[in-house]
Amino acid sequence: MPAVAKRADRHTPESLLAVAVDVFNVRGYDGTSMEELAKAAGITKSSIYHHVSGKEELLRLAVTRALDGLFAALDEPGALEGPAVDRFAYVVRRTCLELVRNLPYVTLLLRVRGNTGAERDALERRREFDHRVADLAAAAVADGDLRPDLDPRLTARLVFGLVNSVAEWYRPDGPVTGETVADALGSLVLDGLRPRS
Amino acid sequence: MPAVAKRADRHTPESLLAVAVDVFNVRGYDGTSMEELAKAAGITKSSIYHHVSGKEELLRLAVTRALDGLFAALDEPGALEGPAVDRFAYVVRRTCLELVRNLPYVTLLLRVRGNTGAERDALERRREFDHRVADLAAAAVADGDLRPDLDPRLTARLVFGLVNSVAEWYRPDGPVTGETVADALGSLVLDGLRPRS
Repeated sequence: MPAVAKRADRHTPESLLAVAVDVFNVRGYDGTSMEELAKAAGITKSSIYHHVSGKEELLRLAVTRALDGLFAALDEPGALEGPAVDRFAYVVRRTCLELVRNLPYVTLLLRVRGNTGAERDALERRREFDHRVADLAAAAVADGDLRPDLDPRLTARLVFGLVNSVAEWYRPDGPVTGETVADALGSLVLDGLRPRS
Repeated sequence: MPAVAKRADRHTPESLLAVAVDVFNVRGYDGTSMEELAKAAGITKSSIYHHVSGKEELLRLAVTRALDGLFAALDEPGALEGPAVDRFAYVVRRTCLELVRNLPYVTLLLRVRGNTGAERDALERRREFDHRVADLAAAAVADGDLRPDLDPRLTARLVFGLVNSVAEWYRPDGPVTGETVADALGSLVLDGLRPRS
């Protein structure tokens, strides 16, 4: 009789996904084995296969959640109604808020490199999101409400780089709220650090 | 007699360091073994020990180079002379330029986590650099040349996050020069995307 007792699988698909996302973020998706996932979840490998078909399905579920949150923001009234510059500002702020609210999932999305089908699909949806926001910025430039002298593609790169960089240091238990970060970031992007006279 | 011929060690300390930085950036410092370094350099492990005391010395040499470049920018006339706002703008632009010019070394520096003495020393110098730039920003706020309504620590986080994010996508053989990126980034940070009337 083996000395090691079988541990019951108390995981829901939801709780298993949360464990997997944390492990992927620490060890990297490529560097994580099913054995390590099972160990982190405190269940057997075969119990994991009871929930999902494998590692790639967990990745797909995780990045889909992150992407669905980002795309949902584009369908909110703030992103649909009013001048393009206000819609652009709304989306920049909301993207930042989505990142801090959904931090492990968005962090994982930002690290996706495209080695698997799930990763390539995620990269394609990220590109679509970037294009939607770049279109908003272009409309605001056409309205005369954003500067025409900055290259729109480079600007989009920088703005998303700024938003994404928040994932590097933001901690939900830290002293700064997500709203504060989103407000400061939106204000920096739209108005810059120099005072407006 | 072994079938594998010994390969001559044609490395200089400089070329060995360049190989090590690339391997660290791909596999992570913690995830890289001396065996992998030797394989990537095309020499034996004992040949590496002929150049350096080990993995940590390679890391120290690499991040020291990145940090020396950043600190050198603080001693240039543009960072020392004139109004604080201009010195701040100069340093932001120069930090961005230093990153693209010294990309593998600065990328490695940005990934340092503090597990070894070399990493902790590097983090301490990074903090010192951040403080020097934050002091410049505070002086510019005191002069009335930067907005007083943004929290200076949060602003510094965002600005450095923006600069560092360039390492995620910038490629030396890409269509955009480092100068173009540094100019656009500096302009975004100082003046924002909204036109100034």
